[in-house]
Amino acid sequence: MIRTIEWTDQGVVMIDQRLLPTEEVYNTYKTVEEVAEAIRSMVIRGAPAIGVAAAMGIALGVKNLASEDGLKEKFDRICQIIRETRPTARNLFWAIERMREIFERHREASLQEIQTALEQEAVRIHREDIEINRKIGEHGQQLLAQRVNVLTHCNAGALATAGYGTALGVIRAAVENGKEIQVFADETRPFLQGSRLTAWEMMKERIPCTLITDNMAGYFMRLGQIETVVVGADRIAANGDVANKIGTYTVAVLAKEHDVPFYVAAPLSTIDLNTPTGDQIPIEQRDIKEVTEMNGRILVPQGVSVANPAFDVTPNHLISAIITEQGVVKEPYQETIASLFRK
Amino acid sequence: MIRTIEWTDQGVVMIDQRLLPTEEVYNTYKTVEEVAEAIRSMVIRGAPAIGVAAAMGIALGVKNLASEDGLKEKFDRICQIIRETRPTARNLFWAIERMREIFERHREASLQEIQTALEQEAVRIHREDIEINRKIGEHGQQLLAQRVNVLTHCNAGALATAGYGTALGVIRAAVENGKEIQVFADETRPFLQGSRLTAWEMMKERIPCTLITDNMAGYFMRLGQIETVVVGADRIAANGDVANKIGTYTVAVLAKEHDVPFYVAAPLSTIDLNTPTGDQIPIEQRDIKEVTEMNGRILVPQGVSVANPAFDVTPNHLISAIITEQGVVKEPYQETIASLFRK
Repeated sequence: MIRTIEWTDQGVVMIDQRLLPTEEVYNTYKTVEEVAEAIRSMVIRGAPAIGVAAAMGIALGVKNLASEDGLKEKFDRICQIIRETRPTARNLFWAIERMREIFERHREASLQEIQTALEQEAVRIHREDIEINRKIGEHGQQLLAQRVNVLTHCNAGALATAGYGTALGVIRAAVENGKEIQVFADETRPFLQGSRLTAWEMMKERIPCTLITDNMAGYFMRLGQIETVVVGADRIAANGDVANKIGTYTVAVLAKEHDVPFYVAAPLSTIDLNTPTGDQIPIEQRDIKEVTEMNGRILVPQGVSVANPAFDVTPNHLISAIITEQGVVKEPYQETIASLFRK
Repeated sequence: MIRTIEWTDQGVVMIDQRLLPTEEVYNTYKTVEEVAEAIRSMVIRGAPAIGVAAAMGIALGVKNLASEDGLKEKFDRICQIIRETRPTARNLFWAIERMREIFERHREASLQEIQTALEQEAVRIHREDIEINRKIGEHGQQLLAQRVNVLTHCNAGALATAGYGTALGVIRAAVENGKEIQVFADETRPFLQGSRLTAWEMMKERIPCTLITDNMAGYFMRLGQIETVVVGADRIAANGDVANKIGTYTVAVLAKEHDVPFYVAAPLSTIDLNTPTGDQIPIEQRDIKEVTEMNGRILVPQGVSVANPAFDVTPNHLISAIITEQGVVKEPYQETIASLFRK
């Protein structure tokens, strides 16, 4: 059992994903600022996990308040600290909204009651996320053949969620259902979520996994060795366009070229009905050091210009299906996605 | 002026491309075995440069012979040492054939005359390669718009040739002709030829260059920021299928999806008329340490399964044109490539 993030009396405990798989270090974050910095610096990453961390960060911020003087302003400030960490993942903003609802509902209550309510909500979001992932897994695994080679990009596993995972949840559920799954894991430059995190998760559970660099997926698809793609999502627009880790779009184009099904697995909390299409999804541009350095050693000529967009958008027409806890939807996504929220 | 490889009285001098751009170290290789190891370990890489190194290695091997006893067997052994270094690049075998022709032509001559003839041939191959690259550049630059953003993959530059480069030769020639070229350089995992070598070459000549990871090319194509692709080749089959650095095929698929021209720049010595299609091109599988380690530090969970194909094959239908020293050819490649050899 991988413990990604936990609420404890001492603070929010997270496994430091920057150090995996070499070191398994658990840090305790005691303030909302520390949690925000953990999100920003990718101690924790993956949209659902970021959502959980955001909720816990807000609960922690309010828990640390000594008095209820100017509580509304303080709460807004706490939410703002969390809001400014990362711009793309929908779940961050979804979690802030959910925590704000609890806060608003308890405006007449004592500070201690509010603190308790927010803490309970954060823990509930954590617990729900695991249940949601299990449902995603159960729906998604039905799409996989009895024996199939599956490519995944980045890490949409237990480490990207409260546990179990979205894309890797689909793979885990298929294995639990007796299916023979051979995973291909894209390395996922620059942060190496595939080689460091996905490969680590698969090895822990003895699910066969072959690590490849990002530029090898086309080679293996052309050989017919990749038969299905399953990825997670950071934000899904109302029309089904999907923002996910940089490189996802390339995998989707390759999948189309080779008639390989391309599935996106994500909870409803990743879907943003207020974002009409992928064009409106803000794409985070991260520090170029992620590209230019590895373990503190510089890999490139000094002063070279570098781009580091952290996400890309896969247009809906390249997506075979979106797998959610409410079921699997296909085109036309504008209608089918809306229907998920009416269930 | 970048000095990739040179014949000297002391031996074959090569810049150690494994250390660039951090260190500029020139090593002198004094035996054919040392040259072979330099090719195998990628001190030198890039099909045309490998061809030059192969020729010089053979010349060196014969130069080091003390007597002409069993000369034919010794020559065969020397060629075999070179032949067994790397399987994909056509230029290696082309250079061996060319050196063998010189050897056969001088069978009646003295050892010293043979040594001189082979040395002269190796130096001629080196000199010719630069001239050929300049012709490739001149033909190829005519395909580029006056102001254009060009993506290249891996390094097909001065470091991959005797000098000037094939794909980068096209870019250099365009710049020399007053065109405004903005280069995008794919990092090119696992060996990082793009970030370490192409970016270094472009910076030396102040050609604007933006480094991206391999999985970002799709993002920038979708934004319309990559307008043309130019790559080199390791082997071109008679039907125009192109083996080149792993990831090239993915770039070609992306180019097709975005209606971006995809050009291959290579000398005739990279074309193998005896290889009917790309399916017959042997793809080298290299040590997985190239993927799993960086500067000696392990990046992945211990024992993970890893694939490391060094090349992939781009089918002819994805290639807009092949640029050679004899001119530019387009589909149907079976006929147009054959015509190049009749010029």
